[in-house]
Amino acid sequence: MKNIEVCLTPALYPHRLTRNNFIVVIVDVFRATTSICAALGNGVKSIIPVSSLEEARKYKERGYLVACERDGVVLDFADFGNSAFNFMTEKVKGETIAYSTTNGTKAIAMTTDDATVAIGAFSNISALTQWLEKQDQDILILCSGWKNKFNLEDTLFAGALTRQLLNSNKFKADCDAAEAAMDLWKEAQHNPVAYIDKAAHRHRLKRLGLDDVIPFSFEPDTNPVVPVVKNSVIINILDEN
Amino acid sequence: MKNIEVCLTPALYPHRLTRNNFIVVIVDVFRATTSICAALGNGVKSIIPVSSLEEARKYKERGYLVACERDGVVLDFADFGNSAFNFMTEKVKGETIAYSTTNGTKAIAMTTDDATVAIGAFSNISALTQWLEKQDQDILILCSGWKNKFNLEDTLFAGALTRQLLNSNKFKADCDAAEAAMDLWKEAQHNPVAYIDKAAHRHRLKRLGLDDVIPFSFEPDTNPVVPVVKNSVIINILDEN
Repeated sequence: MKNIEVCLTPALYPHRLTRNNFIVVIVDVFRATTSICAALGNGVKSIIPVSSLEEARKYKERGYLVACERDGVVLDFADFGNSAFNFMTEKVKGETIAYSTTNGTKAIAMTTDDATVAIGAFSNISALTQWLEKQDQDILILCSGWKNKFNLEDTLFAGALTRQLLNSNKFKADCDAAEAAMDLWKEAQHNPVAYIDKAAHRHRLKRLGLDDVIPFSFEPDTNPVVPVVKNSVIINILDEN
Repeated sequence: MKNIEVCLTPALYPHRLTRNNFIVVIVDVFRATTSICAALGNGVKSIIPVSSLEEARKYKERGYLVACERDGVVLDFADFGNSAFNFMTEKVKGETIAYSTTNGTKAIAMTTDDATVAIGAFSNISALTQWLEKQDQDILILCSGWKNKFNLEDTLFAGALTRQLLNSNKFKADCDAAEAAMDLWKEAQHNPVAYIDKAAHRHRLKRLGLDDVIPFSFEPDTNPVVPVVKNSVIINILDEN
């Protein structure tokens, strides 16, 4: 039986027990991972995850569409920011987008050398679960958090995904963080939008007028894709089969 | 209004927002902090927290009583290990004990230069709450965890303490980790011993035959002391008043 481990923030990734032959599921529910699912579900060809702003700027100079924000704010040179809605327009269809965010794309960068990296959000939870069940590997769910701090929204998704995976009877979760995440999801699941009203990031987005994306971020299965990093680029692995 | 922040493991301490004029409450419910409360509540004069085994060995050579364990196992040169019950005998009354544990004493060592360091456990939760209410400072609750990983038992205490402090209306808790800890405590509070049955450390202690301390660890107010680090030594600050 394969194991599920949850890292509640990127700062805990170096202390993980899961070390070999595993799949990392990156979670950044209000920003990067819901946006990536929206992009690939709406005809974007591929996404280049970019860690630094300098790198993002170079992609812009080379003619790529660039999505880029820091602390919720769109960078001046970027074509658009980090809300999932930005990735659901006609403009992006068939394009490759270079993408950099405060937390999510950094979490992707820190894991690509260690494991297969997949992208998880409520938008693709069922498609992702089905794909993970077929891979027969241990799973590490890595919450992007906020600047290495714990956040509620990513933890809720970690709990929801762990619960779905355990239901298949192919996995176990010997991990206190997974247990906590499942208990928090149990508390929140009937109305996650109301539950998350107390979260710090929710208030940060509200101040910036960006909180319109929150209800969409909790809607399950709006984009049944499985974004996976292949050769440093994120594609929908289901398109390959 | 003063703020409460929760760090779910020592690995998150460098990423805390609380930086100035604060009190750190160290939590290691199954081991160090319940034991320290038991010791000071049962006549131990003071406790010297010791990070490394070499240092602990030197204290032994100098004639101190030494309590020392790693991974739940008593070290051969130590007088006793890390269960709270070891600190509640006639042998320890009036003594100063040098004390080193896998997680708790390391958390103490990493914080003493930054803040006033207090020790929290269910054993002293009400006495600690009353003392903290009088200090008029921000509070950082630092869960010792297990080797920098998240654990359930310390998080439950963080939630219980945050809840008690908020009830005084002198504090706020703008912190997702505090919210999560309070929700987990809400789920567990009616029977924490049953709740914690799923925790990894509970099984680790059980394998070692050390889980007899768990029910005691969740009993509130068995030792109404407030252990505080003063000049590198832990004393009961209530004795000074």
